[in-house]
Amino acid sequence: MKINILTLFPEMFDIFNHSIIGKAKDKGLLSIEAINIRDYTKNKHKKVDDYPYGGGAGMVIAPQPIVDSLKAVKQHNKGKVIFLGPRGKTFNHSIGKELAKEEELIFICGHYEGIDERVYKYIDMEISIGDFILTGGEMAAIPVIDSILRLREGVLGKQESFMDESFSDGALEYPQYTRPEEFEGDKVPEVLLSGHHENIRKWRRLKSLEITRERRPDLFEKLELSKEDKKLLKK
Amino acid sequence: MKINILTLFPEMFDIFNHSIIGKAKDKGLLSIEAINIRDYTKNKHKKVDDYPYGGGAGMVIAPQPIVDSLKAVKQHNKGKVIFLGPRGKTFNHSIGKELAKEEELIFICGHYEGIDERVYKYIDMEISIGDFILTGGEMAAIPVIDSILRLREGVLGKQESFMDESFSDGALEYPQYTRPEEFEGDKVPEVLLSGHHENIRKWRRLKSLEITRERRPDLFEKLELSKEDKKLLKK
Repeated sequence: MKINILTLFPEMFDIFNHSIIGKAKDKGLLSIEAINIRDYTKNKHKKVDDYPYGGGAGMVIAPQPIVDSLKAVKQHNKGKVIFLGPRGKTFNHSIGKELAKEEELIFICGHYEGIDERVYKYIDMEISIGDFILTGGEMAAIPVIDSILRLREGVLGKQESFMDESFSDGALEYPQYTRPEEFEGDKVPEVLLSGHHENIRKWRRLKSLEITRERRPDLFEKLELSKEDKKLLKK
Repeated sequence: MKINILTLFPEMFDIFNHSIIGKAKDKGLLSIEAINIRDYTKNKHKKVDDYPYGGGAGMVIAPQPIVDSLKAVKQHNKGKVIFLGPRGKTFNHSIGKELAKEEELIFICGHYEGIDERVYKYIDMEISIGDFILTGGEMAAIPVIDSILRLREGVLGKQESFMDESFSDGALEYPQYTRPEEFEGDKVPEVLLSGHHENIRKWRRLKSLEITRERRPDLFEKLELSKEDKKLLKK
């Protein structure tokens, strides 16, 4: 998968040189390249922003450097153009799964008070990560790109490692335990030490349902409970 | 404000050396220090994770290195302990405003398949940034910390720059325009060039309401519309 990011802070995307995404890049499974919008400004002082028409605090990024940097990237990346902004669709697992099917994507990160409205005609999709404000689109692009990339085949160590996780089937994850068997007086639940796979599976499913019901009733309501699920919850 | 982050990838938080947050750090308004959980493991091979009890793919971070690194940090940071995880409360502007009132905060970032459940008793609050999965809690901690810090006095250039933005009053932001007056045939709306402050204010409010109604009917429903708002929308 090929990802280009238009940003005023390309160095922020060095974050993808580490951990799981960094390894996938090293294996050649992904390319992530951040382009500095400032390199494309025609302003002689290299300025990219200006005062908003109509007054008000803050600066707005001018249309010219964004559109020109986008045109340059489009020469070699034919992907959807995604803008990270507060007015966008709220990102979730299913949007991530759709975008993970693409081979190329372009992200535009705004900064300061936002971008000039006239850039929107170049944008295919606006995505928000939630109802809060950030210093720049970069801070939203990072989790969005991470979430998309980890769904690509080969990025995670084993395909199975996203089988049971939160949101993949609509429920939250069951509790996990590892060594030691006793930590500060707290023991691992006995069933997990039993070696009885069927009981372990049922215990985990029940915990997952209970945690979802308690913490996210909105998600719990949307779950399609199987006969077994109902039986587990009744006990 | 003093922030400590417990993570297996402290270098990811170099992102806060840039842009607005970087400047606030340089001014001494903030301190952000990431601590490597791995430095606290008692495992002779420096391992921090192990197989999950009960089987399954992936590795779970053991309780010992997290709890020991937390105890070390608590020597000099008395703040709330926040874990970034999918089972947490969904972060939003009002949680951000509450946390921005604190003087110290500690964040714990999980990685791989998660953390051992027995660590939860040390955690004051679990936060999620949305219904999607990340390669690690770092990718969620970054926007959450950014969003909190920008609400601190002095971090943004001018206090006013967060007066009119999305979510601060429950509505999405109005469109912004800057130079030039005409870009690729698209003109700046005339009212913004008029210099008539009252008309500009009304136009912006109407656009903000219209955009919120169209894109986020859930937010629109929660708005308390003033008499003027209703009059604007009727026109």
